[in-house]
Amino acid sequence: MGINEAMQLVEKVMHQVIETDVPVLREASEHILSAGGKRVRPRLTLLTYLAAGGQSLDAIAPVAAAVELVHTASVVHDDINDHGVLRRGRPSVNAIWGRTFALLTGDYLFTKVYELMAPHNELNPIMAEAAVRLVEGETLQAAAVKNNNYTRQVYYDIIARKTASLFEAGAHFGARLAHADDTIINALKLFGFNVGMAFQIIDDILDLTADDLTLGKTSGIDLDQGRGYAAIHTNGNSNGAVAVAEAVTEVDQDDPMKKIKAKIMNGDAIAEGRRRAHELVDMAIACLDVLPQSAARDELADLAYMVVNRSY
Amino acid sequence: MGINEAMQLVEKVMHQVIETDVPVLREASEHILSAGGKRVRPRLTLLTYLAAGGQSLDAIAPVAAAVELVHTASVVHDDINDHGVLRRGRPSVNAIWGRTFALLTGDYLFTKVYELMAPHNELNPIMAEAAVRLVEGETLQAAAVKNNNYTRQVYYDIIARKTASLFEAGAHFGARLAHADDTIINALKLFGFNVGMAFQIIDDILDLTADDLTLGKTSGIDLDQGRGYAAIHTNGNSNGAVAVAEAVTEVDQDDPMKKIKAKIMNGDAIAEGRRRAHELVDMAIACLDVLPQSAARDELADLAYMVVNRSY
Repeated sequence: MGINEAMQLVEKVMHQVIETDVPVLREASEHILSAGGKRVRPRLTLLTYLAAGGQSLDAIAPVAAAVELVHTASVVHDDINDHGVLRRGRPSVNAIWGRTFALLTGDYLFTKVYELMAPHNELNPIMAEAAVRLVEGETLQAAAVKNNNYTRQVYYDIIARKTASLFEAGAHFGARLAHADDTIINALKLFGFNVGMAFQIIDDILDLTADDLTLGKTSGIDLDQGRGYAAIHTNGNSNGAVAVAEAVTEVDQDDPMKKIKAKIMNGDAIAEGRRRAHELVDMAIACLDVLPQSAARDELADLAYMVVNRSY
Repeated sequence: MGINEAMQLVEKVMHQVIETDVPVLREASEHILSAGGKRVRPRLTLLTYLAAGGQSLDAIAPVAAAVELVHTASVVHDDINDHGVLRRGRPSVNAIWGRTFALLTGDYLFTKVYELMAPHNELNPIMAEAAVRLVEGETLQAAAVKNNNYTRQVYYDIIARKTASLFEAGAHFGARLAHADDTIINALKLFGFNVGMAFQIIDDILDLTADDLTLGKTSGIDLDQGRGYAAIHTNGNSNGAVAVAEAVTEVDQDDPMKKIKAKIMNGDAIAEGRRRAHELVDMAIACLDVLPQSAARDELADLAYMVVNRSY
């Protein structure tokens, strides 16, 4: 079984595991899953497994599916908190089914993560920790906006927890399931972590630079809510759109957000973010040196480059 | 270690496991935990363990704590959906910290369940299934209200999933950890399930009959939202307070809910619910016959009686 066939199996596992006789849970879960997505996390798990010498991609597909479902669950809950109406090019779950069912769908997807992981005894503490850190990161983000302390340091702490931890866990799973030695496990964990950091920085930049159609989700939410990459580049102080607007001298009263966006874009913030993301990817790729040469190792490097070079 | 000392340990485990450097998660989790609660679920786990011959209560305290935390997480999310402002005699998490942080606190508590359960390999599929069913039950409930099909049959399906499944799992854990044989495991699972069903029926009756102060949470929410025990006793048809109000001929325009409540109370609905709960408890206690006589077995029977005879 090749990587693409295995990715198909991951899709199948996700669609099967959400089966239930409760129509709204099935339909809402199906809606968010069938909208697709980049699927970078399960791909990372499968490729680290192969690169570390794993031979049975079909056996680890449920774990890769679980990693994607943690992300999917968090996305559904995010869209409630952010009032996001567009996700993966479709209306968000809360936009269609409302807040209560979106909350329950996110909970449901998370219980399905647990169900998929249950047979993998040695992996459960790792997944539990990643899930804890993801929720901590989301909370730190909401708290930083509320408390007006969205500094650069806080930003990196947030993205380390809410994004990089799950990437690290996904890579860790692949390495562990392939029975890799500690040197390789640690190198692949670090690879996953750095790729996750780069992924989130680029995500936040795309939130500023891309439009809804290209992005497939409501763009500008981070800027609007005074967080993300924009927040740490608006005169070093931000408390949502209002504070950002105050910091800009000539604000277009008709569309202040457009002006603020233009200001950030004209500065060196975007270029600096991209530079930082590229550095992280270079560090990640250096981690792969401990692995023997293989097609999977090359594909891991490709995945890392894709993360920083993507336009959506 | 006796049962009361073990229950103290369960409290300690819960307070320890929610420790985090993210202030709002720590404070909100601490708030809901330190408000107490009946703790009937962890008590059930500890007592089934003892009654099935278990000897190391301290070793299973984390599992009992996890059972209570599943319930706690669902309560925090429930209060978001129901706009409940009072819980366990205190303002609810959403009333103090708002919806976003309440959602994240519920998510956080659920990740902590996962963390506590992770070392217990053989129990994880059981807990995952109970968590899935809990979310399904909550969803069926919200859907039944929305779709106006809150029949008696639907009601029993809802409470079986949202409440009895977790009671069943809690008893199952105790029996499994005590290495009981299949006869005893199955008897204790059924004991837990029936006690859970009785518990929820009484809970729904108390929602109608008790005031906020006695109940420690916002009362009448079920009636107000057209669900719970009230919904299936209002002329067999209900779609929230409006439909209920229409079914009542002389509604007091100043306080229609009071009149509706009075009508339900004056009928035989409450008596019938109590009768059904007592039957379930009788069936539960009959399950205990397979166990050798012991203090723990007596305490399990006491717990079952407490469930139906409580006033809050």
